[in-house]
Amino acid sequence: MSDRLLYLPLGGAGEIGMNCYVYGYGPVENERYIVVDLGVTFPSMDGTPGVDLIFADVAWLEERKERIEAIFITHAHEDHIGAVGHLWPRLDAPIYARAFTAHLARLKFEEHGHDELQIKTVSAWPEQITVGPFTVGFVPISHSIPESSALVIDSPAGRVIHTGDFKADENPVVGEPFDRALFEEISKDGVKALVCDSTNVFSAHPGRSESEVIEPLTELIAGLDGMVAATTFASNIARVKTLAEAGSKAGRSVVLLGRAMRRMITAAIETGIISDFPKTVSPENAGDIPRENLMLLTTGSQGEHRAATAQLSRGKYLGLKMAEGDTMIFSSKTIPGNEVSVSRILNSFSEMGVETISGRDEIHVSGHANRPDLAMMHEIVKPQVVIPMHGEHRHLSEHARLAESNGFQSIVAPNGVGVDLSGNAPRVTEYVETGRTYLDGSIQIGAMDGIVRDRIRIALNGLVVATVIIEDDEPLGDCWCELRGLPETGVSRAPLVDVLEEDVNQFLMRAKPKTLSDDDKLEEDMRRIIRKTTQEEVGKKPEVQIIISRLSS
Amino acid sequence: MSDRLLYLPLGGAGEIGMNCYVYGYGPVENERYIVVDLGVTFPSMDGTPGVDLIFADVAWLEERKERIEAIFITHAHEDHIGAVGHLWPRLDAPIYARAFTAHLARLKFEEHGHDELQIKTVSAWPEQITVGPFTVGFVPISHSIPESSALVIDSPAGRVIHTGDFKADENPVVGEPFDRALFEEISKDGVKALVCDSTNVFSAHPGRSESEVIEPLTELIAGLDGMVAATTFASNIARVKTLAEAGSKAGRSVVLLGRAMRRMITAAIETGIISDFPKTVSPENAGDIPRENLMLLTTGSQGEHRAATAQLSRGKYLGLKMAEGDTMIFSSKTIPGNEVSVSRILNSFSEMGVETISGRDEIHVSGHANRPDLAMMHEIVKPQVVIPMHGEHRHLSEHARLAESNGFQSIVAPNGVGVDLSGNAPRVTEYVETGRTYLDGSIQIGAMDGIVRDRIRIALNGLVVATVIIEDDEPLGDCWCELRGLPETGVSRAPLVDVLEEDVNQFLMRAKPKTLSDDDKLEEDMRRIIRKTTQEEVGKKPEVQIIISRLSS
Repeated sequence: MSDRLLYLPLGGAGEIGMNCYVYGYGPVENERYIVVDLGVTFPSMDGTPGVDLIFADVAWLEERKERIEAIFITHAHEDHIGAVGHLWPRLDAPIYARAFTAHLARLKFEEHGHDELQIKTVSAWPEQITVGPFTVGFVPISHSIPESSALVIDSPAGRVIHTGDFKADENPVVGEPFDRALFEEISKDGVKALVCDSTNVFSAHPGRSESEVIEPLTELIAGLDGMVAATTFASNIARVKTLAEAGSKAGRSVVLLGRAMRRMITAAIETGIISDFPKTVSPENAGDIPRENLMLLTTGSQGEHRAATAQLSRGKYLGLKMAEGDTMIFSSKTIPGNEVSVSRILNSFSEMGVETISGRDEIHVSGHANRPDLAMMHEIVKPQVVIPMHGEHRHLSEHARLAESNGFQSIVAPNGVGVDLSGNAPRVTEYVETGRTYLDGSIQIGAMDGIVRDRIRIALNGLVVATVIIEDDEPLGDCWCELRGLPETGVSRAPLVDVLEEDVNQFLMRAKPKTLSDDDKLEEDMRRIIRKTTQEEVGKKPEVQIIISRLSS
Repeated sequence: MSDRLLYLPLGGAGEIGMNCYVYGYGPVENERYIVVDLGVTFPSMDGTPGVDLIFADVAWLEERKERIEAIFITHAHEDHIGAVGHLWPRLDAPIYARAFTAHLARLKFEEHGHDELQIKTVSAWPEQITVGPFTVGFVPISHSIPESSALVIDSPAGRVIHTGDFKADENPVVGEPFDRALFEEISKDGVKALVCDSTNVFSAHPGRSESEVIEPLTELIAGLDGMVAATTFASNIARVKTLAEAGSKAGRSVVLLGRAMRRMITAAIETGIISDFPKTVSPENAGDIPRENLMLLTTGSQGEHRAATAQLSRGKYLGLKMAEGDTMIFSSKTIPGNEVSVSRILNSFSEMGVETISGRDEIHVSGHANRPDLAMMHEIVKPQVVIPMHGEHRHLSEHARLAESNGFQSIVAPNGVGVDLSGNAPRVTEYVETGRTYLDGSIQIGAMDGIVRDRIRIALNGLVVATVIIEDDEPLGDCWCELRGLPETGVSRAPLVDVLEEDVNQFLMRAKPKTLSDDDKLEEDMRRIIRKTTQEEVGKKPEVQIIISRLSS
């Protein structure tokens, strides 16, 4: 059988989050693999209550782990790196990343007690790493975190350029500018496939440069009285630096609030990304400084409940408290799904008399390439095929339409769809069982295991627990019901628990020995009665847990 | 004691939703009251799982029900009218509304079996209704539903203008245009207070007219092949009519899909709001018409799971099915909090190959006055005080700042804050206990009752049910555990339920009679052990339900 080049997304092609892409080369079902990114996505009360983190389901890879050559991490955003600590033991392959990313990956390995030597730091292009049939290079590309890289993935079947997350920013303030000439250079001998970020395909205007927010932010902060706080993604080192410098210029001492904020700035300094960050003071020492001389940089721009911004909105945090006359700046965009949490914080500040500044275009720019920038990237690389990734289905489809309208082949390959890139046209060759893995407390569970579904059902419908003791196939005493999450009183005005117990006891008194001796039958009948009575009394069909204890005299 | 004029919001001043405002006139604690609007807000899995609807808590009013003269409904949006059927029995006062609104209120009364004669239809200004010390008139004002009205509320203390929801649209397509001269006329003798919509105070540009979407929508629909569906709020009769006419002009038969869509159009025709709506065909008959000649108008623009749009995104609905080459138009804005539901639908359509058109400014306009329109309204009315309503706290504050910056007095009065308007300056005189009432199934429960909190806790942490039978202060047999919403296996690799039962049984064997004879003590100890073991095994501290059955020999 002849060798082929396989592209298989396991995560990230069907959502914005939990990126995990597989490339394979070799004979069918005997390919050697590389994995690009091991990210997380975040749970919500809506669909995943109680879940801590969500990863791509890597069972397919795990079954083939001895054929995984290496894992490459494009950049250190959590949706690309967040699962390395959790999933690495299941894949057990060396991890390659550039210095800043590797530094943060090692911190994760440290927390999990994994062998940090498995994480290898690589330099930027033209350095290349050869693993099995693949040769891979990290090409610097601009994004909203330092050292983001596109991967140049060479195999005997040709070159693939995997953009990672990117924007075409020629002045990104911190880190390497977008280098058009370099991408032309690496593309000049022909590119099999451009696997390309789709996040902002619906944004019609060319993207704006990170450098454009410096002046508006500096002016804004210069004009403010009272304490000033500003929040953005801690990993956006350029933005954090701009905010710190604006504060410093306005005569304010800078305080980093929130673990991620301190960790990211430390990582950026330790890996040489930045050398001239303004001097900071600790929250403890900030108490001695007049409030109009303070500039807080806080985590939690997405309304995260436990982050510094949310804590400040609820009162004191590490001895610091915002008050009337102070200003809170959101130098960020609210990710869809987080609007309500962010609004809650804005309202809390409003109640405290703190002015909030949010949703202003001039103080935030996106880290992703907009529609015209994507079209430009297609033109620079001139690939045989454009494969949209990093998007929901609608982003992938729209990106494919964009590429096709400019004369490129394109294919929509959502998670689990394997595409053979060896030929002149991409060809879907397999559908792989894929999905999501939940980190639930300390345990990884499958999204389809029913555990979270059970929690959602109870949250929606409440729960009745009914206990009955059966001795020698006769009920011993009465049935006992407990309610969880249900109204205490229904339409009959009697306590719901009394009505339920009476109905079940009536049934038990009349039940035939055949029923009483059969756990399944008894449970089924009791459940039916409980659901019917609860529906009549309070209009809800609850979940029911029946507990039958059998004694023999 | 002298008479006073009281303004007291119970809902709507602190959120966008569940509007309920009280005006009182008379001696302190002996005022006569009128209520303006009885709306709902919608639950979410996030904070109110399993809840069906949310109302303002009207306990304060209920305690004073014999002093309520009347209830006035400004317009028929659910956040203003939605609770009339549910709350009316607790307030028991006549309801006044204009014809279209009254028609819809009567449908709600019919569903609840209330006396429809309690709903009185009133004509627009200059008609006025005198109820106790108040004289109230409905002044037509433009919004996104027919017959929206500002209320002119006269009392011996002067005139209040309560705008209701409004925009300054001089060409609203259906219904009455904004009439600047009329508002000048009713304001010319001095207005005590302008109680004013704050929804769009953060929108810097003047609002656009409903008439501006006609051309873009007509052009868009004329250019489409395949089946076309469009969704918007059913109550936006102007928009629905524009869409229907655009479809009709393009040679398409119009199908109304969704109960609200049919009910609203019927109400508009029956009350004379529109007379020339394009002929519609039923979903049953639509099957005979070629798909390129169909125009579906669907409910569910906010991603509601059971509405027509969502059903179509999941497959067949009433025999109709969208397919590749068809187009789904969202002529709507996504309300914050609904982004994820709407995205889910857009992605489902994308997977079906249906093109979706959403988030386009040219095919939707807001129904609320923007910042410059609010300033204009202040200028027209020239009130003694501007009282912002219909907004979250941040909207109210910003609106107050806007008014003050133009030289008006203003006051932020969130829900529960009573303001005396009698003097020359508004004066906060009371803080009233207020909150939210949940409709949970068929029962009204308080937001603070703990019922929903219990459901949320189980959804986040899972539940362990542990049963033990105690006979004569000795455990009879083993403890029995059941898990709900918890991983089956923990770090020890043994089934969690086995580990739990073993730990509890160990404890029971060693427990002193003093513990075994004391239900509270026994429960407390068992709960502690179960939480500790579960935390160690799966990293979660679950909710625990202990059931102790006591037998005596």
